[in-house]
Amino acid sequence: MSTSSQSYPMSGGDDQHSYIHNSSYQKAGIDGVQEKARQYILENLDLLNMNPNLSTFTIADFGCSIGPNTFHAVQNIIDIVKLKHLKKPQENSRVAPLEFQVYFNDLPNNDFNTLFRTQPPSPKQEYFSVGVPGSFYGRVLPRNSIHIGNTFFTTHWLSKVPEEVCDKNSLAWNKNYIHCNNLIEEVTEAYKVQFEKDMGVFLKARAEELVPGGLMITLGQCLPDGVAMYETWSGIVKDTIGDCLQDMATLGVTTEEKIEMFNLPVYFPQVSELKGAIEQNRSFTIEMMEIVSHPLEAVQLSNNFITSMYRAILSTVIERHFGHSVVDELFRQFAKKLSEHPIDFEKCKKQMVYHIVLRRK
Amino acid sequence: MSTSSQSYPMSGGDDQHSYIHNSSYQKAGIDGVQEKARQYILENLDLLNMNPNLSTFTIADFGCSIGPNTFHAVQNIIDIVKLKHLKKPQENSRVAPLEFQVYFNDLPNNDFNTLFRTQPPSPKQEYFSVGVPGSFYGRVLPRNSIHIGNTFFTTHWLSKVPEEVCDKNSLAWNKNYIHCNNLIEEVTEAYKVQFEKDMGVFLKARAEELVPGGLMITLGQCLPDGVAMYETWSGIVKDTIGDCLQDMATLGVTTEEKIEMFNLPVYFPQVSELKGAIEQNRSFTIEMMEIVSHPLEAVQLSNNFITSMYRAILSTVIERHFGHSVVDELFRQFAKKLSEHPIDFEKCKKQMVYHIVLRRK
Repeated sequence: MSTSSQSYPMSGGDDQHSYIHNSSYQKAGIDGVQEKARQYILENLDLLNMNPNLSTFTIADFGCSIGPNTFHAVQNIIDIVKLKHLKKPQENSRVAPLEFQVYFNDLPNNDFNTLFRTQPPSPKQEYFSVGVPGSFYGRVLPRNSIHIGNTFFTTHWLSKVPEEVCDKNSLAWNKNYIHCNNLIEEVTEAYKVQFEKDMGVFLKARAEELVPGGLMITLGQCLPDGVAMYETWSGIVKDTIGDCLQDMATLGVTTEEKIEMFNLPVYFPQVSELKGAIEQNRSFTIEMMEIVSHPLEAVQLSNNFITSMYRAILSTVIERHFGHSVVDELFRQFAKKLSEHPIDFEKCKKQMVYHIVLRRK
Repeated sequence: MSTSSQSYPMSGGDDQHSYIHNSSYQKAGIDGVQEKARQYILENLDLLNMNPNLSTFTIADFGCSIGPNTFHAVQNIIDIVKLKHLKKPQENSRVAPLEFQVYFNDLPNNDFNTLFRTQPPSPKQEYFSVGVPGSFYGRVLPRNSIHIGNTFFTTHWLSKVPEEVCDKNSLAWNKNYIHCNNLIEEVTEAYKVQFEKDMGVFLKARAEELVPGGLMITLGQCLPDGVAMYETWSGIVKDTIGDCLQDMATLGVTTEEKIEMFNLPVYFPQVSELKGAIEQNRSFTIEMMEIVSHPLEAVQLSNNFITSMYRAILSTVIERHFGHSVVDELFRQFAKKLSEHPIDFEKCKKQMVYHIVLRRK
């Protein structure tokens, strides 16, 4: 029902460069906080009490990509709901057992074929699964249709790049940088405005889709207050990719002009900005908000791991702008630069993982 | 939640050989009966009366393939429901307007990416669409979740080829024929048993998925009682494709043994068999049953049209058994044979289109 002006899914398929084989960093982030979410749901979810005739329990994963993390996450929720259900014997008197339906949402050009093809096999998969094509910056599901919504490492992808950062005549022009590294205040401000707007749209849509009492579990990365992206290892990675593009422009593989017109539609808010953006929406209460370190944040990741991970994440958006032929060469150069100047993880400032449970009023 | 042992979707993508560009024969069949279904729903659908608080109206298309016919069909239903809704002003007092959700179901290896990519653009598309991967010979959706179900030209695809027709030691061995052309009685019987079993499973699953009062609209092809497949033009087409495979075996492109092991999982019942299979299920009442001629049945179809249509339908199943390299050559030979011996549509016996509206008790 809605469309996104810009949509860059994770790399599809299941070859060596696919997201499916390069999403273990994200998985580690999910695993790290899983136990707290379990505990919260076990103690607080009262949807089954509120509606003893409920026959289908619905879960949606917004921005699911192509797995396997999404399968892992929804299975976790199902296990908890079942456990909670079993703990209340009086509820077992229902005529038919509770059924589960899981809505896997992502952009229409997400590789749903691979998502469906790689679903856990039948006996294990104890739910009816459906794919929902559409931008989560807008409604993708009917009103009051979801009991638990998830979104994991997604909302840093904005609905679009703020226009002024590609405008040479604007104070918010991002020069030759390819992302919001927080070096130019006006650029940061432009990205921040877009982030707040997008988060507002996201939460408004989810508020309509969730049933009263429903939970929205949000997991993602942010910056501690006062920390800039260029000081973090993933900021350095993107700046380095930008440097590689510059080198390629010098060699004539791409052009300076193309780079100037390119920015990633990605923004990592500082903690207080994130909290402010969420509190703007009055349909939810914040039930839980945890800011934790990513379990792999202090680990010295190998250059190969970094290259593969960022290729899976960024190849679609880069290919769309610079053309297919650029991707291989770019990541070859990136790997080379990384081996010459390895990232010193010890010296980098840390990004944080936030884990928020919202409850629909 | 369920898997099919054999699954052969229509040709994906949108190139010249795709189902998307070669499904106009099926569309003509749908258009032909559309008006009667409209009329029936207008006069009889009382789901909105039964549940004045209904906020989401759900439609499922079982075996939707990749469009455009499926979009056409569901849009028709939505238009009627809206029309009916508007005709009853007392119902317009509901707080929020009725929303529509459409479940597009097909096998997990159906090309959902193309389905999603080719959906009608936003303003026209007045429903939330979701893809449901799974064999309709089993449950694919939760209990009581669908108001109107559709299935158009799908249930002649069986869940599997009856084993005995590929067994040289069985009386039901289908020799060198590649489909049930009704020349061997035991083969027909084996296919018929499988069809009845499959139809039973199909209706049992739909009965669970539909809400009480919900409608199941079924459209497909069958044979008039007493007519055999080998007497119809589409039977002749498949026998001719079988002949081409034989020629290719002689030339060494494939083997006699491979052909003996190959049969299409397709069966067109005679009218009385179809009716019997449906009446077996006690959860539905037959509200309407029409047996009409296909509007293109008497038209002399061009050889190109026939070749393209059958290539889109059969290339997946043929490729799976004989290998990718065989498909091009087979349809080249088929086109050649067809031009040497064009089908005399005047002399062929006619298949029929059935159009059935079932109502969930």
